[in-house]
Amino acid sequence: MTYCVADHLADRLAEVGVEHVFGVPGDYNLAMLDHVVGHARLTWVGCANELDAGYAADGYGRLRGMAALATAFGVGELSAINAVAGSFAEHVPVVHVVGAPSTDHQAAHRVVHHSLGDGVFTHFMTMHEGITCTRAALTAENAAAEIDRVLTEVRDRHLPGYLLIPTDVSAAAVDPPSAPLPTPVDHTDPEALAGFADAARTLLERAGSVERIALLAGLLTHRVGGREVLADLLAAGPVPHATTVWAKSLVDETADGFVGTYAGAASPEEVRTSVEDAAALIVAGVQFTDLTSGFFTQRISRPRAIELGARTASVGAATFSPIELPTALGALVPLVRELAAAGPPPPRPQVPADAVPAADDAEPLSQDALWAEVAAFLREGDLVLADQGTAFYGASTHRLPSGVTFIGQPLWASIGYTLPATLGACLAQPDSRGILLIGDGAAQLTVAELGTMVREGLAPVVVVVDNDGYTVERAIHGPTEPYNDITRWDWTAAPAMFAPDGGARACRVATVGELRAALTAAREDPTTLAVVQAVVPRDDVPQLLADLTKALGQANSRA
Amino acid sequence: MTYCVADHLADRLAEVGVEHVFGVPGDYNLAMLDHVVGHARLTWVGCANELDAGYAADGYGRLRGMAALATAFGVGELSAINAVAGSFAEHVPVVHVVGAPSTDHQAAHRVVHHSLGDGVFTHFMTMHEGITCTRAALTAENAAAEIDRVLTEVRDRHLPGYLLIPTDVSAAAVDPPSAPLPTPVDHTDPEALAGFADAARTLLERAGSVERIALLAGLLTHRVGGREVLADLLAAGPVPHATTVWAKSLVDETADGFVGTYAGAASPEEVRTSVEDAAALIVAGVQFTDLTSGFFTQRISRPRAIELGARTASVGAATFSPIELPTALGALVPLVRELAAAGPPPPRPQVPADAVPAADDAEPLSQDALWAEVAAFLREGDLVLADQGTAFYGASTHRLPSGVTFIGQPLWASIGYTLPATLGACLAQPDSRGILLIGDGAAQLTVAELGTMVREGLAPVVVVVDNDGYTVERAIHGPTEPYNDITRWDWTAAPAMFAPDGGARACRVATVGELRAALTAAREDPTTLAVVQAVVPRDDVPQLLADLTKALGQANSRA
Repeated sequence: MTYCVADHLADRLAEVGVEHVFGVPGDYNLAMLDHVVGHARLTWVGCANELDAGYAADGYGRLRGMAALATAFGVGELSAINAVAGSFAEHVPVVHVVGAPSTDHQAAHRVVHHSLGDGVFTHFMTMHEGITCTRAALTAENAAAEIDRVLTEVRDRHLPGYLLIPTDVSAAAVDPPSAPLPTPVDHTDPEALAGFADAARTLLERAGSVERIALLAGLLTHRVGGREVLADLLAAGPVPHATTVWAKSLVDETADGFVGTYAGAASPEEVRTSVEDAAALIVAGVQFTDLTSGFFTQRISRPRAIELGARTASVGAATFSPIELPTALGALVPLVRELAAAGPPPPRPQVPADAVPAADDAEPLSQDALWAEVAAFLREGDLVLADQGTAFYGASTHRLPSGVTFIGQPLWASIGYTLPATLGACLAQPDSRGILLIGDGAAQLTVAELGTMVREGLAPVVVVVDNDGYTVERAIHGPTEPYNDITRWDWTAAPAMFAPDGGARACRVATVGELRAALTAAREDPTTLAVVQAVVPRDDVPQLLADLTKALGQANSRA
Repeated sequence: MTYCVADHLADRLAEVGVEHVFGVPGDYNLAMLDHVVGHARLTWVGCANELDAGYAADGYGRLRGMAALATAFGVGELSAINAVAGSFAEHVPVVHVVGAPSTDHQAAHRVVHHSLGDGVFTHFMTMHEGITCTRAALTAENAAAEIDRVLTEVRDRHLPGYLLIPTDVSAAAVDPPSAPLPTPVDHTDPEALAGFADAARTLLERAGSVERIALLAGLLTHRVGGREVLADLLAAGPVPHATTVWAKSLVDETADGFVGTYAGAASPEEVRTSVEDAAALIVAGVQFTDLTSGFFTQRISRPRAIELGARTASVGAATFSPIELPTALGALVPLVRELAAAGPPPPRPQVPADAVPAADDAEPLSQDALWAEVAAFLREGDLVLADQGTAFYGASTHRLPSGVTFIGQPLWASIGYTLPATLGACLAQPDSRGILLIGDGAAQLTVAELGTMVREGLAPVVVVVDNDGYTVERAIHGPTEPYNDITRWDWTAAPAMFAPDGGARACRVATVGELRAALTAAREDPTTLAVVQAVVPRDDVPQLLADLTKALGQANSRA
């Protein structure tokens, strides 16, 4: 068979690290998908619907640094567009590949299915403008170059991109690529870097010793590939450090220097003072959002701060650019090492022990007991996804074991996201056990991928918090209003519905002992998806969430 | 309580005929929803997810001429946007009401949840530009006027519109409306109408007699409110007539003059010749699309045609404008009556009897047998929704009993649409029994609303065509490729999963006799939702669909 545009796309996807392509087929992308399913290094993962496929790709992209989503023109791409927007908000590189009507149909302005009937074929690409970093409408002539450009930008900017491929363009002959894609370039200017290092040295030396400085790490540090150099920095000296809740699991939370999760005034007091009162504070890749900052109550003293953005670094009021975040962190390593060597080892920070699980098996489940038990259940290697709501806020305040990956979505905050994201994340990190924590209302949005996970041989533990409605919203407004009710489902019937050939089990638990037994059984059976329907009181909410929702309700009602 | 913008919106929605508001709550729309649930003439219908809510609103809007969808900023509105685009493509009036962050948060460019984090709050309204006929970002000052303008446009243009309501604007005090909304205006120009009537008379008289003319009616006739005057026209004389498949159930299919469904070369021969060979052809509100025209094989002789668009009428090459479609149809009524009176009554058109259901109970189900049985099962008053795929093409070739409403979506063709649309349509037309015909792959996209239907006390008959995958796509391309496989579900477990408190039943049928028994049982129990999982051979497709998919496969592979 002649090498064609679809082959080029498939080869390039494999080259940038994609092994799984998520999506839903449609007649405008079927022939293109032949070259995905036929590719030696790509696997097709068909999902029940396109929004779910987009969420799955997002979960995959967070762990792999690249993901691919394939949908059909109009109906498919628009069903997935909320997921793509979420990837944009949360800095996740996903390329959205859309199969379109043929070039001749477009040129003839044909009234074909999946179009608006107006003969215009640019509407949906235009709708992607605000939510992707780059886009291309492929032609036979530009396809190879444009695919390369878009994939490179998506990879290097850590944001979603969009490719529109008419059926005939997908099949058009092209020469196989003669060279690999350009590798990512470090855009750091040496002069800027030198200026930054000098200024940082001055600020850190003024602080005097390692125990008087602190570090706060945020999501962008993860996205731009700064995790390893951040670990180097923390190994260079015992700097007290915290992450935002958005960046949870970016650092080893069992390390001595880890003080906890910072969320402005909603932080535990010892975390808040460690961060806010430091004589010098390194702020790496942090964006403060309403739900991750205690509703903008962060207090960061700019004169005492070294702030690192993706390509800009500042020390106090002085800004240095371009400096890539990992390079800036790297420049701080020797400075911290010198500072640590200069003084005596600092006293170990006072780290409060994590909440002790309730001891009594017969105790009815509460939010506090549920999340304490779940936290105690986690093991190194686990992959935890916590849906925005009681799950995210309940789980995120617990200290994670080493080597646990935690995924949430607190800026875009699209409920239901984590269920399909678990599919994607588990395929991206197949040696990990997935642990999905999700509310019953949220899980109703995306339930269908339970079946897809079983089909793919995945066996996550799925804790469905059964509290009879949208509890977060009850806490914000309208606790007894009908719009916060949901239809009652029986989650223990999910295996019969979605996995009739086996591979899933389910139970309902209402006490601490029942939950423990269910989690233990799930741990002991690593090849069966386990749904645990955990019944908690309807209006019980974790404390962190109670504080936040109060602020939210006030913000929304301010006229 | 002070009368506020949300009250104004709720009152106006009720005024334009909305009784049910579909959606999903979010913290940016909760306070607004207080005024929906508190309104004497509005009922809130919470759905499992926003796409489903949008489909439900579309199904409602098709029958009521107005529908409302309420979602939250960003995550909610983008999840629903495919449904809104479908409403645009298929001319359905739905107002999409989006609850947004407060005016002060927007003005301060706050990085709040459900935003992209860039402080810009216009992205998502901009994304609605191509798929709505009108939009407004409400402020306390413009809210009342803009709500009135948008609702009026949506009602009169039969297309979706968009309202963005910040939380504080929703609560802002306004005066109650002092006058009702303006009623729809007939924009017909009398002079144009007179010219049209003269030209039409000449053409019809040249045809000579009623039996030598014909009428082809399309979807727009329904949308612009032309159904009753069309019935008047057909009562004025025995004009042979057909509809497009998109307009199925627009006319009484048991009438003598009804010849069948026209789809270009894919039509039954007697339908094709009746339409194409008529000496004069009235074409009312027809838009030819690929899947409703036998892939653009219609042959309409313009010199012999009277063509009516929404606001334009033409006779041969002469165009008259503005003339509203119902007014143009009305002008034809006396002309047809005169022509009918002038000649002898025409011979009854030869109408082939509908396919006789297979007689043998033990016969395994096939596509042909399935749709013949379903057609024989229909009764006056039934509300049939057929999902794009084997269901739509299998069901649409059968002649419907009088008083059956048929809903499909052959232009936008978003699979899964009809399941939530059944929720909306059944609420819009509560005295009808809903009959949902849908493929297993399609039903996986939107399954969750089975529970919502039961919660709302609805009891449709849901025929799930179990043919193990995306059969339409297998027919187009890749019959054995993995992308056309779906995860196997057990639909008979749906009642346990989605309706644990009762209200639903389910069975699997594989023979004609089992199907008959299941349908009979469902008919006899009008208060229980009945899922009928109908097993048919994997690659069996209705003949009309086989012809179409062959053309589609060729169109997509044309390089």
